[in-house]
Amino acid sequence: MTVSRRRVLGMTGAGVALAGAGVAAGVGIDRFGQDAPAHAATDLVGFHGEHQAGIVTPTQENLHFAALDVTTKDRAKLAKLLHTWTDAARRMTAGQEVTPGGAVSGAAAAPPGDTGEALDLPASSLTLTIGFGPSLFDGRFGLAGKRPAALVDLPVFPKDKLDPARSGGDLCIQACANDPQVAVHAVRNLVRLGFGVTEVRWSQLGFGRSSSTSRTQMTPRNLFGFKDGTNNVKAEDADLVRDQVWATEADGQRWMAGGSYLVARRIRMHIETWDRETLQGQEQIIGRTKGTGAPLGQAQEFDQVDLHVRGEGGVPAVAEDAHIRLASSETLNGAKILRRGYNFVDGSDGVGHLEAGLFFIAFNRDPRKQFIPMQNALSSKDAMMEYVQHTGSAIFAVPPGVREGGYWGDGLF
Amino acid sequence: MTVSRRRVLGMTGAGVALAGAGVAAGVGIDRFGQDAPAHAATDLVGFHGEHQAGIVTPTQENLHFAALDVTTKDRAKLAKLLHTWTDAARRMTAGQEVTPGGAVSGAAAAPPGDTGEALDLPASSLTLTIGFGPSLFDGRFGLAGKRPAALVDLPVFPKDKLDPARSGGDLCIQACANDPQVAVHAVRNLVRLGFGVTEVRWSQLGFGRSSSTSRTQMTPRNLFGFKDGTNNVKAEDADLVRDQVWATEADGQRWMAGGSYLVARRIRMHIETWDRETLQGQEQIIGRTKGTGAPLGQAQEFDQVDLHVRGEGGVPAVAEDAHIRLASSETLNGAKILRRGYNFVDGSDGVGHLEAGLFFIAFNRDPRKQFIPMQNALSSKDAMMEYVQHTGSAIFAVPPGVREGGYWGDGLF
Repeated sequence: MTVSRRRVLGMTGAGVALAGAGVAAGVGIDRFGQDAPAHAATDLVGFHGEHQAGIVTPTQENLHFAALDVTTKDRAKLAKLLHTWTDAARRMTAGQEVTPGGAVSGAAAAPPGDTGEALDLPASSLTLTIGFGPSLFDGRFGLAGKRPAALVDLPVFPKDKLDPARSGGDLCIQACANDPQVAVHAVRNLVRLGFGVTEVRWSQLGFGRSSSTSRTQMTPRNLFGFKDGTNNVKAEDADLVRDQVWATEADGQRWMAGGSYLVARRIRMHIETWDRETLQGQEQIIGRTKGTGAPLGQAQEFDQVDLHVRGEGGVPAVAEDAHIRLASSETLNGAKILRRGYNFVDGSDGVGHLEAGLFFIAFNRDPRKQFIPMQNALSSKDAMMEYVQHTGSAIFAVPPGVREGGYWGDGLF
Repeated sequence: MTVSRRRVLGMTGAGVALAGAGVAAGVGIDRFGQDAPAHAATDLVGFHGEHQAGIVTPTQENLHFAALDVTTKDRAKLAKLLHTWTDAARRMTAGQEVTPGGAVSGAAAAPPGDTGEALDLPASSLTLTIGFGPSLFDGRFGLAGKRPAALVDLPVFPKDKLDPARSGGDLCIQACANDPQVAVHAVRNLVRLGFGVTEVRWSQLGFGRSSSTSRTQMTPRNLFGFKDGTNNVKAEDADLVRDQVWATEADGQRWMAGGSYLVARRIRMHIETWDRETLQGQEQIIGRTKGTGAPLGQAQEFDQVDLHVRGEGGVPAVAEDAHIRLASSETLNGAKILRRGYNFVDGSDGVGHLEAGLFFIAFNRDPRKQFIPMQNALSSKDAMMEYVQHTGSAIFAVPPGVREGGYWGDGLF
């Protein structure tokens, strides 16, 4: 049974939350007895907790990511908006309209409380995750003293070709769901609630979860056709998650304990050039076989990468400039990241090609020790750099999870 | 059971086709025993037939549409590419790689025969539909005498604000599937096979099937939050499909018998302005209630629209400038269209808003009698025009279906 938003509306109070929480995953048959979208599983991901959802949550199929700028200088307005957003996120992640009956009722003279395009759709495992960019800690809101040391301005990496219109942002909203319409609806409604306080700086849709956050998921493929992210931190790696994903009070800013740092990179892939490379060449560049995803020199995808294996003539199985060697924790003093990237195609590039690539999202406890050294190694030496171009970049401090009655960033404001 | 592309590879010859044809819809468990994407139903849509698939086929969840220009003047090369494309499409719509084992084997010195990103994914109801733009019938390929009269250059409609970079094209590929990665993979591989003969002019991703082509489907919602396309032609309307979708030999060009004409319009929606309109105002503009989708003055979505019903004070229930009145076949001499549109969000517009809208696709037998009069009525009088802007436009002659052993457009070349 699907509990659609409108059906939920027929229930009240605690019954709503219970009905929501009790829904099992499944393919929906809507209340009209017609086939609902086959992908619209009714999973609900809980909103409250020590950490925000949408980080170690098993990666959903679709992404809508938006970076916003704050247009007011009024700190109280900003704090109020975060409160409003939290209330809306609580409801939307439970498969409900932003306000009860908001899309289809309300005062004749008032705009609807919900935009309506997700009315017939289940929650679809929607998670909403927000973050604060370095620019939020400039002078405007009296937050300069609360900027975490780990929230550095990212350096310009070798070969970066960043578009300012696709970079930065005071705030970010990451919406992940198994239905793109549900993710878009969520971002659009938060943006709508922000009128007069925030505006969209840039926004990115993604599909095909180009990396998985859980060992319960098949490793998906990026637009180079390779399984991607096999060796990154997974939700089940309890020690790694504790040590390399979550910030602690000891890291500096108390309000960030239980939070994490999100790095977003829009990576254009030159798929046309890649597609002219031989299979062997592609595998050398990645360091894995294309079919199974096994590291070169090994048999299975999850076999331990051995950077010392040599093949014919003593040549290293995994080349010196192979992607998995340079990104390996072995060469990075044990540093790892948790990845939650998505593939994208944004129309065409105007000169005959698809504008395709990877919207890379990493969560890490301290980018200075994790993402930055990794990206420095990759952008200076990775053979793959010939086929990619980093066109957008941003970093956000992702505050800890929200408790019942709390709101996003209540430890900061 | 999911028949993934790689599993299919283990079978040969006729067995492959049979295995493919016998697969029932379902949620996939891949061969690793892990959960495959929940939305990746294994449906297969047959490729061969009197008409191309992807027209009356029940609308899939995701769209990748690409318009291409032909860069050669060599007619034989173009005809050969259409042959190559057909072979690839036969395989991809059956859930197979472009060439047997193409993604994971092949000569050391040759690029892979398939790009690989759909390797672990089922066919996902993929359909591939191609069309020929008016410009293909200029002098280059000796086709001028074969241009159908119905393949008119679309007029400039009132309030059009078309971007040439999002309009026109010698050829189009419409890929629809229940997994965006499968649709993207298909377009990308056809584009790859066209290197040296064609290049991408523009490309558009869409989601949320903003209209349904079959009465077996729930009517989806556009980004105005309304059920859209309720009254358009559906696959089950046999007489309407025959009379208003399929071209016949009597219409002029014999090679188009069993084909149709595809009109694509990229319609930017000013969702921020829309979201400030009252519910009542929105419903007046559309002519339907937002909740159920019932025509104003009626009770249920599929109740007959009655343009003569009057409410309080003798005011028409459906306003004179309401969208459904102007688009009604009653006011258009019986003309209807079959719609296959999708919602889109293409990043942001650079001035603080989401770049959101509707990628409208209509199939009709003769745009001169169907789409053009409809759009003329809408763009000059529709109250909705205040909230939308047509930014891209194209028309294509969609040839009939392919028989076993035939190829796309073999009646034309």
